[in-house]
Amino acid sequence: MTVLLYDNSVSGNCWKVRQLLRLLDVPFDRRELSVVDRSGRDAVIGDLNPALRVPTVVLEDGRPLAESHAILWYFAEGTPYLPTDAYARAQVLQWLCFEQYDHEPAIAVVRFWVAISDAPRDPAEVEARRVLGRKALATMERHLSDRTFFVRDALTIADLALYAYTHVAHEAGFDLEELPAVRAWLARVTAIPGIVPMPEG
Amino acid sequence: MTVLLYDNSVSGNCWKVRQLLRLLDVPFDRRELSVVDRSGRDAVIGDLNPALRVPTVVLEDGRPLAESHAILWYFAEGTPYLPTDAYARAQVLQWLCFEQYDHEPAIAVVRFWVAISDAPRDPAEVEARRVLGRKALATMERHLSDRTFFVRDALTIADLALYAYTHVAHEAGFDLEELPAVRAWLARVTAIPGIVPMPEG
Repeated sequence: MTVLLYDNSVSGNCWKVRQLLRLLDVPFDRRELSVVDRSGRDAVIGDLNPALRVPTVVLEDGRPLAESHAILWYFAEGTPYLPTDAYARAQVLQWLCFEQYDHEPAIAVVRFWVAISDAPRDPAEVEARRVLGRKALATMERHLSDRTFFVRDALTIADLALYAYTHVAHEAGFDLEELPAVRAWLARVTAIPGIVPMPEG
Repeated sequence: MTVLLYDNSVSGNCWKVRQLLRLLDVPFDRRELSVVDRSGRDAVIGDLNPALRVPTVVLEDGRPLAESHAILWYFAEGTPYLPTDAYARAQVLQWLCFEQYDHEPAIAVVRFWVAISDAPRDPAEVEARRVLGRKALATMERHLSDRTFFVRDALTIADLALYAYTHVAHEAGFDLEELPAVRAWLARVTAIPGIVPMPEG
């Protein structure tokens, strides 16, 4: 059985998974689910992912796996995208946690509100999330000021996870002009053969 | 050098780390940081954790590590609290992600607002987070309805991560009365020798 990915083409969380699977030459089928109209999700993926979110994958043996970072970790294990050293692995996980707690709820959520969904939003709520997003980007800038990638000197799933919504942050109204280290890192990741930024052609 | 934990005694995120270190008999020193008055944090942990949050640990060799779940993963590796099978490990990580994305921002944040911090909050904002918290608890209830622990049939760091703010959810105004599987699981974890619920005596 081929890996099956419940997917969405504008979701950065889904992009993370597609991008890693492509880098690893893992074949997969895609099934597109809307991120705007979520009706009917329970019938489609309710038994696969209790949180009813994409990405959700069904592995070759039929077992389901959810949460973009758990999927990244599973497929990256034993590849250059996840180091073997215990401390380096913990640093990768630290940045995966940062992405999910500080970065995604700000930048991805604002992008969803202003660029994907049509639902009207309280401008104060948007601005409050933008403040958090700018803080997350400043944390990245500080970390990257003397580094080429997030952990050690090579691309890991920490970079893929953070690239996902950073390379489309302008769609959410974030300005990266004052963040030269973040921009240099984005260019460095984009230049890696096999990296396909969103929107995919 | 002994492991050093930048800690807070009412933080569930810090509890996760203290609890695992105690289960593993890893000696550690604690340094208490306020979660209400965050002034001066940059001077104390700025070089250790770019996100300036507790828990932050300094390992025996002096290297820092941040994010409660990255710390759990690092110390649990090679112990019964993190399985060796790739799929079971991915399931543990899936629940760690769920805790951080769906559970903590709702239940821990409401608890902080109503039981720890004195800052006044918009009741509508509190109720919006309570809706998300009830949804997270319902997801747990569904998963636990035919299971003893979150992954397989033994305590893992997924249980510790979810126990942290679930066993004090009443402090945030959440009612577990209608969630028998969650209550049974809480009792099951509490009964394990070495588990010390908050507040610690």
